[in-house]
Amino acid sequence: MATPVTKGTDSRQRFIDVAVRLFSQHSFAGTSLQMIADEVGVTKAAVYHHFHTREELLLAVVRPLIEDMRTAVEEAEALRGRHARAERVLTGFVDIVVRNQGLTAVLSGDAGAIEIVQSHPELRGVVDRQAQLLADVEPGPGGRVKATVVLAGIARGVGPELLLGMDDETLRHHLTEAGRRTLGLRTPRAPRE
Amino acid sequence: MATPVTKGTDSRQRFIDVAVRLFSQHSFAGTSLQMIADEVGVTKAAVYHHFHTREELLLAVVRPLIEDMRTAVEEAEALRGRHARAERVLTGFVDIVVRNQGLTAVLSGDAGAIEIVQSHPELRGVVDRQAQLLADVEPGPGGRVKATVVLAGIARGVGPELLLGMDDETLRHHLTEAGRRTLGLRTPRAPRE
Repeated sequence: MATPVTKGTDSRQRFIDVAVRLFSQHSFAGTSLQMIADEVGVTKAAVYHHFHTREELLLAVVRPLIEDMRTAVEEAEALRGRHARAERVLTGFVDIVVRNQGLTAVLSGDAGAIEIVQSHPELRGVVDRQAQLLADVEPGPGGRVKATVVLAGIARGVGPELLLGMDDETLRHHLTEAGRRTLGLRTPRAPRE
Repeated sequence: MATPVTKGTDSRQRFIDVAVRLFSQHSFAGTSLQMIADEVGVTKAAVYHHFHTREELLLAVVRPLIEDMRTAVEEAEALRGRHARAERVLTGFVDIVVRNQGLTAVLSGDAGAIEIVQSHPELRGVVDRQAQLLADVEPGPGGRVKATVVLAGIARGVGPELLLGMDDETLRHHLTEAGRRTLGLRTPRAPRE
């Protein structure tokens, strides 16, 4: 897995990396700042210097993903046609998931983590707009169900053993194709620009 | 939501129902036997009379679903043709998910709960066979990705607000259609028997 670019201090990024791993092993609710400190090999006070609560740490983890999502959503909303909009959101989402495989498992499957995102109107707004752009392909309950299946399936579909050893490009290609099929989007003839 | 048929003692079922709710709120790792006792309004010893560990309680919750899965998998394996097999597994899985909406969220999204199922070869075997029957529709990585997206998408796709207020039959219909589309299965002309 690629190491993310270090922003700010190295120790801050170190805490984030360890937190992601512990969240995915023990869930957000089952991970304490003390466990993160122990895993990094520092005192709890050292974690506290950067993050006062588990929630702050989760938000630091989640924000960059939501910002990438926001970019895709805003680009999609500037396009004409429901299909083009959904295609833009779908490829953007697949890209985020493939680049952040450990993280999206935490984000999408963890009740505690989801609650935190849902409780921030700004973050939640982006997630909701993304879902709506996919649901718009087919007005009515069928479109809502398909959008939900596509988002949940792609987000959660990168962990299981069935996909072990699959390289990122193969995964990206087939996740996008699965999403297009479910939503009823045509595969674009040429790659975008 | 329908109340499940009470098996054995009422108190045993009561603990199971409360556990499912707490698992989905706090995750498996974040729920203690003490929390379950407090929520039911009994002592921890009373929970202990039925379940000695959180894991035992989770297995009691999960086993009936895995048994339903096993039935669908065995019926599918007796059929001829990859498409017919996948169709049987898909409709069986959608049915389990729609009938157990709170529970499948726990089962499919919770790292701690997944670990327990994975650590029981017998339960894990059923889950793996189910995935393989869907993946067989399209040999190669594309089939594995689609099977994973369909299973994760359907299991996780029943919680979100986008689907609030949708009745079970509508949900069942559209989840099955989403699964068929993703896998490339034709909608059968007449309902089975």
